[in-house]
Amino acid sequence: MSRLVLKFGGTSVGDVDRIKNVARKVEAEVQAGHQVAVVVSAMSGVTNQLVKYCNAIDPLHDAAEYDVVVASGEQVTSGLLAMALQSIGIRSRSWQGWQVPIRSDDTFGKARIADVGTDALLAAMAGGVVPVVPGFQGVTDGGRITTLGRGGSDTSAVALAAALKADRCDIYTDVDGVYTTDPRIVPAARKMNRVTYEEMLEMASLGAKVLQTRSVELAMNHGVRVQVLSSFEAAPGSDLPGTLVVSEDEIVEQEVVSGIAYSRDEAKITLRKVADRPGVAARIFGPLAAAAINVDMIVQNVSEDGRTTDLTFTVGRADLDRTNAVLETSKDDIGFDRLASDPTVVKISIIGVGMRSHTGVAQTMFKTLADEGINIQVITTSEIKVSVLIAEKYTELALRALHTAYGLDRT
Amino acid sequence: MSRLVLKFGGTSVGDVDRIKNVARKVEAEVQAGHQVAVVVSAMSGVTNQLVKYCNAIDPLHDAAEYDVVVASGEQVTSGLLAMALQSIGIRSRSWQGWQVPIRSDDTFGKARIADVGTDALLAAMAGGVVPVVPGFQGVTDGGRITTLGRGGSDTSAVALAAALKADRCDIYTDVDGVYTTDPRIVPAARKMNRVTYEEMLEMASLGAKVLQTRSVELAMNHGVRVQVLSSFEAAPGSDLPGTLVVSEDEIVEQEVVSGIAYSRDEAKITLRKVADRPGVAARIFGPLAAAAINVDMIVQNVSEDGRTTDLTFTVGRADLDRTNAVLETSKDDIGFDRLASDPTVVKISIIGVGMRSHTGVAQTMFKTLADEGINIQVITTSEIKVSVLIAEKYTELALRALHTAYGLDRT
Repeated sequence: MSRLVLKFGGTSVGDVDRIKNVARKVEAEVQAGHQVAVVVSAMSGVTNQLVKYCNAIDPLHDAAEYDVVVASGEQVTSGLLAMALQSIGIRSRSWQGWQVPIRSDDTFGKARIADVGTDALLAAMAGGVVPVVPGFQGVTDGGRITTLGRGGSDTSAVALAAALKADRCDIYTDVDGVYTTDPRIVPAARKMNRVTYEEMLEMASLGAKVLQTRSVELAMNHGVRVQVLSSFEAAPGSDLPGTLVVSEDEIVEQEVVSGIAYSRDEAKITLRKVADRPGVAARIFGPLAAAAINVDMIVQNVSEDGRTTDLTFTVGRADLDRTNAVLETSKDDIGFDRLASDPTVVKISIIGVGMRSHTGVAQTMFKTLADEGINIQVITTSEIKVSVLIAEKYTELALRALHTAYGLDRT
Repeated sequence: MSRLVLKFGGTSVGDVDRIKNVARKVEAEVQAGHQVAVVVSAMSGVTNQLVKYCNAIDPLHDAAEYDVVVASGEQVTSGLLAMALQSIGIRSRSWQGWQVPIRSDDTFGKARIADVGTDALLAAMAGGVVPVVPGFQGVTDGGRITTLGRGGSDTSAVALAAALKADRCDIYTDVDGVYTTDPRIVPAARKMNRVTYEEMLEMASLGAKVLQTRSVELAMNHGVRVQVLSSFEAAPGSDLPGTLVVSEDEIVEQEVVSGIAYSRDEAKITLRKVADRPGVAARIFGPLAAAAINVDMIVQNVSEDGRTTDLTFTVGRADLDRTNAVLETSKDDIGFDRLASDPTVVKISIIGVGMRSHTGVAQTMFKTLADEGINIQVITTSEIKVSVLIAEKYTELALRALHTAYGLDRT
């Protein structure tokens, strides 16, 4: 007997028939002898509608009341799924975030879970009852409703699995696992059977939208085995129904590069002829931080004259206009000649824990892109990834070439 | 300074613009110097949609999970109204039923309020904050969500007004008050400025759909002054914006008959030649009670032979088929010759506390109907009302004639 947490996303509970279908999946796990707790998202489209109401009332709405409004979507599906389970003979009841309780800090709109009460749920499960818990919800020490940010139901599920010491947390979604890269762009992409927490974390941060980044962090910190799989069908020709996110020592044959992520949500800014003197970086990035603009890749070139420098960095594409405005305002203080910006760039990242023990991995990336005539604009690296910024028009070409170069193509 | 509870129904908060309109009504009361708490229903149509989901999952769904699902509609409007108030500069926050708390028994689906916590709300109001409380919601001692039955938000508002010792509870709805009779049928109907609790209770029970019956009972028991008024416009030519429901001693000039109610939700059953022996009533009405069928008017005529009797009574129209089936099953045990049923009847009731001190009130009713050639099939009376059952086709004729006969027509 295992203890499992099953999480179903918005499309999996998108209508009454799909909720009944979810009930049958839960039933199968119960009949296999497992203790099961379930986490559900809101029906697809519902959260967007609720957010729209809030914005229509006031674009600068109170985050605490926003949480009251949007948390209701998950409340509905939790009640409906408990009913659906009861109607096929499975004892079940719902517990809202404040009933569990799932305690969080009071950062309304994107709260972080502090701890999860387990007494009620463990007693229920021991008594043969399947608890259904709405994802996304938390409650402050003061008893106010919070939500965990978009995609927060993944985090709810992992936190619950950690608290319940579950053997596995199964995340049912509308894709059947984690792929070596986006299969809509690279038809030869393969579903991975296993991926390490570290790799999954990089992939989630670098553009793969399968799991919320925070949920992967949490799984890694608590050693929760996470499986990503489809609510609708299993991946063909795969020995596991989905992708297991596990610790490194569980993976026997480690690829050097496991996956390739990309993000079009990038814009490049270049400041020409910045006065090259101490403190200039602070004068550039201080005002951006104050405006809550995240800066990602940064590269600085010493200029020929030795007195000025060119500085290039990237920001989220949605922040480009604000970034330009902040920098023009600070132009005299920073001291630069000219600002150039380019939103038509893409960040391509190769990811793999095997990089730690192999040399020449980055070199293969650079050579492959050069062979295709693709110019690299910015490079950043970490222990298990290499990211490059290239012109957006080369996205598909670069992904396919790299996928082949690192031996990831399905045979 | 007065302390007011304002309640807004589903059409009053039916979309974002109407919620903003409600915020302006609340603002007006705050600017007049009043301490205000607000109770809101779900946006119109939302509760019906949620009920539909529950029935689609399982028509025999668990009432406790039903409450989890349907309570969410009021949660949404409470958050949105708090935002709307904040956006026009009024400090506000929402308190869900479990946060107030509004404690109820555990009769899920139609729970009764046990008591209302006031510490948090009174402290908030004293500090200039307008609490917004979702109607319809309660919470059990065990911390589970309950709902109070359809129309339960009226009851929430009155219970809150009683607990907060409010000076008045204003029920904003889509009609501008309580009328002497249905103005869609009798154009000369007048909005009443004042009506007593007892009269309002009879009217609510007898077919007027302005207030939930339980809310009137509660108001009467706790002496809460209730005002019914329109969210959209004031009644023309009236010295009060709506209708005040108050105790008898607040009404100086009492009409003998205050209002005329009607209910088409009636069906008549006649049992012919029932054996006239002790215990026969129990043998008839026992099985109906066991089947949860409410019997309303009852009349028994001694037959000519003195050994059998004809017995006539009414049930809700929706219960007619089940009633016939129950009686046919018990036919031998009861002992009757023939069963006749008629769903084309209407119950017309004249209501007025002035009846207590006036004679001949019923006689005016009987004569008026006789003059119009309308046959009375059953009569029941109480201290402040007379109800008659007549053929449904005479509904409009009877209402108009009685309205004139009792001097209620607008001049």
